Amino acid sequence: MNRDHIRALLDGVKSGEVDSEDALEELARLPFREIEGARVDTHRALRTGIPEVIYAPGKSWQQIADIVRTLREVRQDVLVTRVEPEQADQVQSALAAGVYEPVGRTLWFGPAEVATEGKGTIAVVSAGTADLPVATEAVNVARLFGNKVDSLIDVGVAGLHRLLAANETLRGARVLIVVAGMEGALPSVVGGLVDKPVIAVPTSVGYGAAFGGIAALLGMLTSCASNVTVVNIDNGFGAAYVATLINRL
Amino acid sequence: MNRDHIRALLDGVKSGEVDSEDALEELARLPFREIEGARVDTHRALRTGIPEVIYAPGKSWQQIADIVRTLREVRQDVLVTRVEPEQADQVQSALAAGVYEPVGRTLWFGPAEVATEGKGTIAVVSAGTADLPVATEAVNVARLFGNKVDSLIDVGVAGLHRLLAANETLRGARVLIVVAGMEGALPSVVGGLVDKPVIAVPTSVGYGAAFGGIAALLGMLTSCASNVTVVNIDNGFGAAYVATLINRL
Amino acid sequence: MNRDHIRALLDGVKSGEVDSEDALEELARLPFREIEGARVDTHRALRTGIPEVIYAPGKSWQQIADIVRTLREVRQDVLVTRVEPEQADQVQSALAAGVYEPVGRTLWFGPAEVATEGKGTIAVVSAGTADLPVATEAVNVARLFGNKVDSLIDVGVAGLHRLLAANETLRGARVLIVVAGMEGALPSVVGGLVDKPVIAVPTSVGYGAAFGGIAALLGMLTSCASNVTVVNIDNGFGAAYVATLINRL
Amino acid sequence: MNRDHIRALLDGVKSGEVDSEDALEELARLPFREIEGARVDTHRALRTGIPEVIYAPGKSWQQIADIVRTLREVRQDVLVTRVEPEQADQVQSALAAGVYEPVGRTLWFGPAEVATEGKGTIAVVSAGTADLPVATEAVNVARLFGNKVDSLIDVGVAGLHRLLAANETLRGARVLIVVAGMEGALPSVVGGLVDKPVIAVPTSVGYGAAFGGIAALLGMLTSCASNVTVVNIDNGFGAAYVATLINRL
Amino acid sequence: MNRDHIRALLDGVKSGEVDSEDALEELARLPFREIEGARVDTHRALRTGIPEVIYAPGKSWQQIADIVRTLREVRQDVLVTRVEPEQADQVQSALAAGVYEPVGRTLWFGPAEVATEGKGTIAVVSAGTADLPVATEAVNVARLFGNKVDSLIDVGVAGLHRLLAANETLRGARVLIVVAGMEGALPSVVGGLVDKPVIAVPTSVGYGAAFGGIAALLGMLTSCASNVTVVNIDNGFGAAYVATLINRL
Amino acid sequence: MNRDHIRALLDGVKSGEVDSEDALEELARLPFREIEGARVDTHRALRTGIPEVIYAPGKSWQQIADIVRTLREVRQDVLVTRVEPEQADQVQSALAAGVYEPVGRTLWFGPAEVATEGKGTIAVVSAGTADLPVATEAVNVARLFGNKVDSLIDVGVAGLHRLLAANETLRGARVLIVVAGMEGALPSVVGGLVDKPVIAVPTSVGYGAAFGGIAALLGMLTSCASNVTVVNIDNGFGAAYVATLINRL
Amino acid sequence: MNRDHIRALLDGVKSGEVDSEDALEELARLPFREIEGARVDTHRALRTGIPEVIYAPGKSWQQIADIVRTLREVRQDVLVTRVEPEQADQVQSALAAGVYEPVGRTLWFGPAEVATEGKGTIAVVSAGTADLPVATEAVNVARLFGNKVDSLIDVGVAGLHRLLAANETLRGARVLIVVAGMEGALPSVVGGLVDKPVIAVPTSVGYGAAFGGIAALLGMLTSCASNVTVVNIDNGFGAAYVATLINRL
Amino acid sequence: MNRDHIRALLDGVKSGEVDSEDALEELARLPFREIEGARVDTHRALRTGIPEVIYAPGKSWQQIADIVRTLREVRQDVLVTRVEPEQADQVQSALAAGVYEPVGRTLWFGPAEVATEGKGTIAVVSAGTADLPVATEAVNVARLFGNKVDSLIDVGVAGLHRLLAANETLRGARVLIVVAGMEGALPSVVGGLVDKPVIAVPTSVGYGAAFGGIAALLGMLTSCASNVTVVNIDNGFGAAYVATLINRL
Repeated sequence: MNRDHIRALLDGVKSGEVDSEDALEELARLPFREIEGARVDTHRALRTGIPEVIYAPGKSWQQIADIVRTLREVRQDVLVTRVEPEQADQVQSALAAGVYEPVGRTLWFGPAEVATEGKGTIAVVSAGTADLPVATEAVNVARLFGNKVDSLIDVGVAGLHRLLAANETLRGARVLIVVAGMEGALPSVVGGLVDKPVIAVPTSVGYGAAFGGIAALLGMLTSCASNVTVVNIDNGFGAAYVATLINRL
Repeated sequence: MNRDHIRALLDGVKSGEVDSEDALEELARLPFREIEGARVDTHRALRTGIPEVIYAPGKSWQQIADIVRTLREVRQDVLVTRVEPEQADQVQSALAAGVYEPVGRTLWFGPAEVATEGKGTIAVVSAGTADLPVATEAVNVARLFGNKVDSLIDVGVAGLHRLLAANETLRGARVLIVVAGMEGALPSVVGGLVDKPVIAVPTSVGYGAAFGGIAALLGMLTSCASNVTVVNIDNGFGAAYVATLINRL
Repeated sequence: MNRDHIRALLDGVKSGEVDSEDALEELARLPFREIEGARVDTHRALRTGIPEVIYAPGKSWQQIADIVRTLREVRQDVLVTRVEPEQADQVQSALAAGVYEPVGRTLWFGPAEVATEGKGTIAVVSAGTADLPVATEAVNVARLFGNKVDSLIDVGVAGLHRLLAANETLRGARVLIVVAGMEGALPSVVGGLVDKPVIAVPTSVGYGAAFGGIAALLGMLTSCASNVTVVNIDNGFGAAYVATLINRL
Repeated sequence: MNRDHIRALLDGVKSGEVDSEDALEELARLPFREIEGARVDTHRALRTGIPEVIYAPGKSWQQIADIVRTLREVRQDVLVTRVEPEQADQVQSALAAGVYEPVGRTLWFGPAEVATEGKGTIAVVSAGTADLPVATEAVNVARLFGNKVDSLIDVGVAGLHRLLAANETLRGARVLIVVAGMEGALPSVVGGLVDKPVIAVPTSVGYGAAFGGIAALLGMLTSCASNVTVVNIDNGFGAAYVATLINRL
Repeated sequence: MNRDHIRALLDGVKSGEVDSEDALEELARLPFREIEGARVDTHRALRTGIPEVIYAPGKSWQQIADIVRTLREVRQDVLVTRVEPEQADQVQSALAAGVYEPVGRTLWFGPAEVATEGKGTIAVVSAGTADLPVATEAVNVARLFGNKVDSLIDVGVAGLHRLLAANETLRGARVLIVVAGMEGALPSVVGGLVDKPVIAVPTSVGYGAAFGGIAALLGMLTSCASNVTVVNIDNGFGAAYVATLINRL
Repeated sequence: MNRDHIRALLDGVKSGEVDSEDALEELARLPFREIEGARVDTHRALRTGIPEVIYAPGKSWQQIADIVRTLREVRQDVLVTRVEPEQADQVQSALAAGVYEPVGRTLWFGPAEVATEGKGTIAVVSAGTADLPVATEAVNVARLFGNKVDSLIDVGVAGLHRLLAANETLRGARVLIVVAGMEGALPSVVGGLVDKPVIAVPTSVGYGAAFGGIAALLGMLTSCASNVTVVNIDNGFGAAYVATLINRL
Repeated sequence: MNRDHIRALLDGVKSGEVDSEDALEELARLPFREIEGARVDTHRALRTGIPEVIYAPGKSWQQIADIVRTLREVRQDVLVTRVEPEQADQVQSALAAGVYEPVGRTLWFGPAEVATEGKGTIAVVSAGTADLPVATEAVNVARLFGNKVDSLIDVGVAGLHRLLAANETLRGARVLIVVAGMEGALPSVVGGLVDKPVIAVPTSVGYGAAFGGIAALLGMLTSCASNVTVVNIDNGFGAAYVATLINRL
Repeated sequence: MNRDHIRALLDGVKSGEVDSEDALEELARLPFREIEGARVDTHRALRTGIPEVIYAPGKSWQQIADIVRTLREVRQDVLVTRVEPEQADQVQSALAAGVYEPVGRTLWFGPAEVATEGKGTIAVVSAGTADLPVATEAVNVARLFGNKVDSLIDVGVAGLHRLLAANETLRGARVLIVVAGMEGALPSVVGGLVDKPVIAVPTSVGYGAAFGGIAALLGMLTSCASNVTVVNIDNGFGAAYVATLINRL
């Protein structure tokens, strides 16, 4: 239930199109809805202006479908993250709705065309092809949260010419998300090329001493570039969430 | 050497007050100055609009004084961080200049009153008295980088009434820096109260299983609040740097 | 073999209803019973007033059934923890007995209605839906050990309003169990709201820097609330066990 | 400011001995007092019935003396923990008050004889002489918080006869605190001998693979005795705090 | 090819029963035999008086069968460790030989009755039923290497009465192997009860903070009992190997 | 108080030289003596045939002197380990006795010439000069516990010729102690050269990735030589203790 | 597209055999080729004189086949590493080309006979049969990159005679790759026998305290032999790559 | 004692200038010299063509002086590393010889001008001023071992323009040493710019999540540039040693 819907409801009451009792009933359903095993917070979108987000791992497709249905009933847009293809299939079938993007594993219930609310562009930069799932999650989330997004892939630090060739795109962004696994050096290099906030996302890509993303995480936390902050390993969603908040300032 | 100084120089040339050759000479000293053991990057302020910053640990007071002198010669504002009191004393004596703040351990060479360039207020929130040095570093840096700053101290999560009492201050900020040691839970709680970007700074405060800030660092990286990003342990400077960039957007 | 049964046995002897030799025989089976691969301690219930507990992982359903059968023969109540659904099915079929609760994965052999022996209420508080299995294990164990239990779910620290709304429940408890994964901040916040002992249970919920529960564990060990003690990751059983001991004091 | 003092104040008002305005003034100073760098929470004793506690490390003796003075002005009992001998000396001189115990490093401002409020006895058991500082902190805190305390020292698991000889003391306690470094096995053994809650305190005693208390901490968290909960490394205070809460139930 | 076989060979030559050339041929096959992917060291048994041992994980059953066949051809006894049941089945079928023990997962090619060469008894003590596979591996290996073995199972430190009841067995051993997971406290307690060498084997039994055996390993390395040495996690074989060497002294 | 002393006492009683009451008095002082902060176990030497050992770190020289005095009064031999030179000086002055060896930091109170009780020779092998303190502690302890000792120093794995030149010494030992820091490879190499038990002692020698002995510890625990067991980092004493037990078998 | 092909192209233009426009077209395809999800860098071979290498894990066989096809179109040799047998099968079928070696898991698209470009021999030494996959990867890569390779397998440090027997081979190499798991001691021993650069490859072979290669990695980093450098765990490819560069000097 | 000296000795014998007995005596002093606590290997220079190196930490200045004197007596060049200024002073005074370089902390006993034996140039690249001690150690060692050295300082990845400006120097080197702390990204970037072997040296520079060099170490081990190998944290010496071996090929 977003602001526009509430406004429409109140306008309807004012104009007489909507019965006061019905509006009351609908508004009263705010703020919580109890469904088994979780309290769904139906007025979060109202509070933050951002769709409700469901993290799929550990939930059955039935649980996901139930939460989505509850939220859709109060006209809330819903984004489900980390959805496996079969899960997505089952939820889409059950609800006869939803758009799935398989690389970033996002499942979206909302308008096909999301209105742009961010003031500038978010650049999503990633180091290797193995980082694509995390980078694509960031791209999808940023777009569905109303931002223009520029995506640069496969621009690792061991091939600087590719990165330098994209200098214009980097400098054109209002906030940047940089995704890298292994040694996680890309945010430092990108951070040195721009004077905008850089959100670094370590990925669990790599083997051996990469330790499931620890090498990249430590590298990003100790970056010699001062404009870098860090989110959890593989947390493309979180990076896009914060970038959205910054881009709306 | 900041933008204003260059503009003044060019205006002087235009008006005939400054000899072209002299201006050329001064500008030519950009971008590097070699001093022993380091290349001082004298046009960083120009590039990022932020004063040059020197990290004191591991440098002798003579090295610090040399770098500051070189930068002041080209009219660059300079901030030195993590300066111990005696070090500060020696540098101040040598240069007959500089303002030292002993809690946040910053040493400043620039205008007494820094012009506000940030669009809103940065809130710096800290959990315990032991976190004050890091929080104060963030406060000092944010102010010297041209931001209005609101500081909330000693508002730990085990005493929620203090935090909730400050709700207005929290909601009034455009970007927040939250500093906490031990379990590092404060950014999660603050992150749930606001819909602005929160930069979390883990501190090395705590003993035993705090492991010099690791407990707080991991807690912040895995925060259940989506609007939190993280910087290195005790990195109050870095948090203020990024907050400044965001506040100028 | 609990105290009541022994008392009944002795009363029977006194009244002549039970033959002395038979009673002797039954009592003589205390304290151990050897079954293949384990010594079953049949007088633990007598000693601690708490049913015998079997930890299922690593045991075949046949081994579980054998131990349960041995204990039931001496009239001991038995609780099996961490039982997978199929395992439960097989043991229930083999013994034609047992009540299984699938979320907390407990399998119970004892009275349908357990007599309340705890003096007050144990509150079990959990942060997210993914923590439900551990929280439910704690709830089930606490109930089957004879306590009144209040359960609060999905009250994470990033949504304080839910937690504060439950203030009365929190303050009404004699001892609290707080279950949380990720940054594990909930025990600190709950610990600040009550002046009763809080037993914190870190869960392995979370990814990346959650490191399978380490982030939550460290957070809880370094809690700024002084009334918090900690048990092993995912150890809902242990928390309920200690809470039971405290609630009987 | 404890309950008794407020009651006396109110009784004084009732009887006319205390002027209403003066009483108001004094009560109004609740709940906070701002002193530089910290908000002193003067009504905590009122809320929890436990004296205010100050953690000394990282504070100058002047800061400690200031906080103590502020609290004593509102008749609050104060306990300072982890106080080094010289620090203690300086604070005692400045305030002309305070009782220092050098092994457990506690500094006490309150009645010489604390009234017993705990219902039973707290046993504090420690493994080696090197664990004495932590064990003594627990003993001191438990006593100053109004508990009867039994102390058993140097009863390590490699010399079981000593431990078994103390069986009566162990079984006589209502709650037990077990302090151990190195492999931290003592809580498991003690936990098997009693059916009361055991609070385990790992210490940083040991070298090499003891890793500053990590070995003991992990050992206690994975104890095979179910009645054990754990606090942070060297946290004798926290153990005594929770034991006090339990002993008042 | 053990000492007895060589002696028999040489006796045969002396007596004329064996042709010198044939003996030469057989002895010449010492010391190595090349088989694909490994050099089989056929005179190790000769050198150490202990059968050749093959570690099964990572080898296909064909590879195992090949190495065993090569060694049996030169009359070497062979022990294969960590063999899964199906693997054992396949190797036994292929070679029409071998005795498999499924708990300790050992597969033996040698005399049904191994001659006792150890001077005293090796006691193998284990803490819980989950430690049985590792303890049984130690028991099997020690027996097949020619030792008398006493096995004590399920004698954890939280139930001291069981351990103390076995005091005679413990004191009767010439060398002890103590197997424990979780907090790994058993070697410390056993070490305090005997004045013989104790070889501690941490197991990967346990969850959460047990960290796959790290808790037990650290506990054993920091044991307060001085007669304890440690082998790798789950290394029942190594413990039995060293115990054998000691028992032959 | 060792066996010989008790025997002499009893012989004296038998022959009438010692008054029964006096002997009783002296024996009655067994088994404990309470001194402040510790129970001194005066019959350990009787039980294990090994002198009492005091670990100096964390004890004041007065505490050490007190414990030694108490033990000497009952004619017990005493070994103090990890004694700093000044500490040794002070204890020696106070007691007018004691022999100090500064490299291994042992302080001995007992006969100048210790009777040999071990059946064979213990070889102590060390890798580098920096390992000498730990190796020398092992040498001293082994000698004072009644063993013949062969010491091989500076025989690292990167200079195999030195090690191979000492082959005879290695093979002549009944049990070996191998001391190494850094990568800790020496026990594996030595273990391959002998068929006797090898006790590996990792040292905290090394920098960077040596992590204070962790690299060596892990290397020794995962040694490819099966005759290796491990003690704690820098624990030369423990290795000598176990080697003594083995050498007496 | 290697140097020879470009030279041939240019010679063709010079001689008139190749149309200038066609040559231009072909050269213009340098340096990048965009294929879905990756930019293929087609002039790397030109730049480094080494074939393009594709790391298979995380890529579908279709993705691998696409990249190989693109590169083969511009006459580039291609090596795919860490290819599972079924993957190899599918790629080979799809492209009707490629040579697969199953132990080292390499898939090669290039000349059957690679011209030798290295000046000397690369020795690849490995400790145990379980290290064979990594060692074989190094052997395959080194050969396909144009080096003569000597391979020594199963020469662990616990059986020095095997290693010393290969002394000539070791000393004949211009650069050595030493592969070892568990304690990773082999590079130290080999490093002491030669005065050439040794590249150490830790493997994830081993269990328990081997921690997936950490023990070997730390051992190699802290090697007492000064001629050792280290690559990532299991990184046989990287070792061969650097050895190739060194061997071409 | 280097090759030239032996050759001169032999030439002297041939020409009659040196008495055969005297030459024999001098040569016979090879290969070892026993001095207290260490065997000095006087023929290492002969074997490897590289001066003897002494690692100063943990040695007294007397020990250092003794070893140097012994080696100088047999005309061996000696390099002492990690020498503190006062130590250097004392050794220089005692021996009336030696050249000390205070940044890299090397103390040299040998010819003022070392003959160049390396075939090309070694480039030493470092990221920040705090890395200078380690980088300078590498520079000094490489020069004293007979290499031409190019040194590039303060060329961090967050300021790519400095690094790219030095492209010619980078490409001119035969082998490169890259020194970096914090996130350790520099070797990846440099590795991408050259096709020569890169030896990466992580430094302990940085705070918090730098963990004393672990972040840099992991970053370098997981580098996306394939031409990078790694040495221990702060091991500038080791890097120069291997670079020397490579540069002599």
